[in-house]
Amino acid sequence: MEQKLEKFKQILAEVVDLNHASAVAGWDQQVYMPRGGAVDRGNILETLAAIAHKKFTSDEVGKLLEELKPYAETLEPDSDDACLIKRVAHDYDKETRVPSRWVADFARVTTLAQTAWEEAKTDNKFEVFQPHLEEVVKLRREYADFFKPYDHIYDPLLDDFEPGMKTVDVERIFNALRPQQVDLLKKIAAKPEIDDSFLHVPYSEQGQWDFGVEVITRFGFDWNRGRQDKSMHPFTTSFGVDDVRITTRFDPKRAASALFSTIHEGGHALYEQGISPTLRRTPLADGASMAVHESQSRMWENMVGRSKAFWKFFYPRLVEIFPQQLANVSMEQYYRGINKVEPSLIRVEADEATYNLHIMLRMELEIGLMEGKIQVKDLPEIWNSKMKEYLGIVPPDNREGVLQDVHWCGGAFGYFPTYALGNLVSAQIWEKLNQDIPNLEDQISQGKFDEMLGWLRSKIHRFGKKFESQDLVKRVTGSTITPEPYMRYLKTKYTEIYNL
Amino acid sequence: MEQKLEKFKQILAEVVDLNHASAVAGWDQQVYMPRGGAVDRGNILETLAAIAHKKFTSDEVGKLLEELKPYAETLEPDSDDACLIKRVAHDYDKETRVPSRWVADFARVTTLAQTAWEEAKTDNKFEVFQPHLEEVVKLRREYADFFKPYDHIYDPLLDDFEPGMKTVDVERIFNALRPQQVDLLKKIAAKPEIDDSFLHVPYSEQGQWDFGVEVITRFGFDWNRGRQDKSMHPFTTSFGVDDVRITTRFDPKRAASALFSTIHEGGHALYEQGISPTLRRTPLADGASMAVHESQSRMWENMVGRSKAFWKFFYPRLVEIFPQQLANVSMEQYYRGINKVEPSLIRVEADEATYNLHIMLRMELEIGLMEGKIQVKDLPEIWNSKMKEYLGIVPPDNREGVLQDVHWCGGAFGYFPTYALGNLVSAQIWEKLNQDIPNLEDQISQGKFDEMLGWLRSKIHRFGKKFESQDLVKRVTGSTITPEPYMRYLKTKYTEIYNL
Repeated sequence: MEQKLEKFKQILAEVVDLNHASAVAGWDQQVYMPRGGAVDRGNILETLAAIAHKKFTSDEVGKLLEELKPYAETLEPDSDDACLIKRVAHDYDKETRVPSRWVADFARVTTLAQTAWEEAKTDNKFEVFQPHLEEVVKLRREYADFFKPYDHIYDPLLDDFEPGMKTVDVERIFNALRPQQVDLLKKIAAKPEIDDSFLHVPYSEQGQWDFGVEVITRFGFDWNRGRQDKSMHPFTTSFGVDDVRITTRFDPKRAASALFSTIHEGGHALYEQGISPTLRRTPLADGASMAVHESQSRMWENMVGRSKAFWKFFYPRLVEIFPQQLANVSMEQYYRGINKVEPSLIRVEADEATYNLHIMLRMELEIGLMEGKIQVKDLPEIWNSKMKEYLGIVPPDNREGVLQDVHWCGGAFGYFPTYALGNLVSAQIWEKLNQDIPNLEDQISQGKFDEMLGWLRSKIHRFGKKFESQDLVKRVTGSTITPEPYMRYLKTKYTEIYNL
Repeated sequence: MEQKLEKFKQILAEVVDLNHASAVAGWDQQVYMPRGGAVDRGNILETLAAIAHKKFTSDEVGKLLEELKPYAETLEPDSDDACLIKRVAHDYDKETRVPSRWVADFARVTTLAQTAWEEAKTDNKFEVFQPHLEEVVKLRREYADFFKPYDHIYDPLLDDFEPGMKTVDVERIFNALRPQQVDLLKKIAAKPEIDDSFLHVPYSEQGQWDFGVEVITRFGFDWNRGRQDKSMHPFTTSFGVDDVRITTRFDPKRAASALFSTIHEGGHALYEQGISPTLRRTPLADGASMAVHESQSRMWENMVGRSKAFWKFFYPRLVEIFPQQLANVSMEQYYRGINKVEPSLIRVEADEATYNLHIMLRMELEIGLMEGKIQVKDLPEIWNSKMKEYLGIVPPDNREGVLQDVHWCGGAFGYFPTYALGNLVSAQIWEKLNQDIPNLEDQISQGKFDEMLGWLRSKIHRFGKKFESQDLVKRVTGSTITPEPYMRYLKTKYTEIYNL
């Protein structure tokens, strides 16, 4: 059996290598590739994905799994090997249930939908995108049916991004969360607007870059095992446990954008850099789920990076780099500025108090589409009425409404909820972290992050993808995913800032 | 048969994609990879190479070739398809003759030899490297035997880098060349030394970078289909016909180094960018051979970049960028400075008049080792005595002698000759180019390169790897590789510069 396990690991190691090769090619595509390289790059990525898929879904892997699954039952349940067999069995089952005919159709339809969405968004013509989105929805409904029986048609989609998570659980969580978020937002909206005009003056790119680097270096980002570059859309990617890349961007209209983008991606990267080296070259050398990954990025970005303790330490440094821009801005003013709440049309620009509402709106539409209760043609209208209900504002056109996100044209239904779940998880972990390290705020205000990072590594990072997210969150915090800590966090923070 | 050809091309396209994926990963490894990424990167590259090799040497490709070879005879001999089948048949035959046992041994031995060489070079201890090099030589002799019957044991090695080229031909060429180069060098050595002290003062990196970019842009480098970065050792690589990357480096002690490195790699890149798009995703989208590739880089570097016509146009620009450094340097002085001849110990720093002598020395040693007439332990002594004979100088230690090059520890016997052959080919093409474009010098002195590049593209670049080098050189110049044009070029140039 040892020999079979070795063979199993060898095949998986090659699949991991191929995926890492794709990651390198994908990183370069977004960071350095000249325009002309697109066609060749498409070929490279398609071939690598096809070979990796074929290798992973081979009969050989299937046969090995049949023999290894009973063997896994004899192992220590939390051991690397037992978890490896269990998690791979889950993914193997999912990938082999989908016929290659569907995969080909889906690739074709989403490629066309991407182009149609770009055109629709540019010209504000939802009707250009509509027939393509209808095709995508049809295929996604078909996809779900490969996983019958299910409790809910949305379950198999959610499971792609959040293994083990059920629609009913997410709905329960969001239903508890929604009224509280809407209520908080109404209270804030009644208060005087915060002045953050000092964030909307020019800040040098180099200064922003240097400050961001200084911050994540202090957090513990290991530059021997990672680097930062610029790209249009910030992202984190990994070419192995010892080479984790992040990117950032500079928005001339929003000075804090690059900093919080660096911190956010740095949070993802600290997770990847903290994965145990014993998981190297296995599929377990990855985040537990999208939500858990997002919990790490959001925690560093919001609980740390938008906290008063953080700026107590870093604000003098920022003023040193930008003396003119911040000449008449106190630390308190700066802190309030970066925490300003303002209902906005665009999800990616949303603040902590409104972000989840954008997500819930999207998930409700996705579920409606999948259940067949919502028709694609009605999306713009429903979108706008939900925006009015949750955020109190209505987009002037579909570009700033239903057409804003790239996810649907790629068929990524089930992805959005993980953003909000990540926020909730970040607060659960944050509460536990502060219980275990009572003087954490003091440490942060002294620029000390080693105990915090050590805690995260030992409780979360090192396990990689060994456990499903609900299981992991329960191990760490004593509870599965729940909205209460996040609401406590938001209420405490904004009560102080807005004098609620 | 059409269908079989399509299948054949499909497999080759996937092999090409895998090789391009390796190229991306290899580029990043040398350009941006953080130190910690080495282990993961090694795994990625090893897996990609193994899969590409397995795919290329599969029985399926063998069977298709058996059917396609007779079919190729019915096609127009110069057609893309006929050339594809012929060139792939050659490579398939070579790759399938080598048993995987040997490949594994070779990988193991050269990995150890690399480390030993580094240690030997650092500590100036040839004896540390000696047993490893003995192993490498043994394996390389064994390798040659897989290709029996051969005319000369060195033939199969040479063929790896210069397909179709025979040892007897190279020896004939070098034997004609050697005395003339030695004689020219003696004449130059008798003349007063040229003052190039202005090259050994600090020049800003940014200025060097900008000037190099300006030069190759004028040559016709397409930045939509390529880019330049920095690396320890400059190189050119391609991720497809529309994404060609070059690198350069800055040597604080040698100001012209970055410029000529950019021009040299730019020459390689212009070749790759000029390959016909009809060869995309085939193994023919590559240089004809190492020598032909080198002929392009050396032509732009030396015939163009070290010519008076070139500097007539560019020197005023250089002075604009570096007004202090060149305040008291005339264009004539600068031209003489960058063409200064000086026998030196290190090949990569050698000038045009001495470079080939370094190569001939190495090839004689390689042939001696392969024939069994030279023992590894005697290399340092033979090296030093040949240096004395050809260049009139003797290295003070083995670091600057027999241990200087990386090639042997990797087992790359047969590679060196292509550098010198490239120089010879560059001069053959240069003569023909000047016959066909009689006012080429005028054009260059006006910064015009489009007619020259157009000529190179139509006569050489677009064909990619369709023809073997001797065949291609004959098609372009009317003669196979011959040393006379190069000697004419050197004599004319240095007679003028040194008043010979």
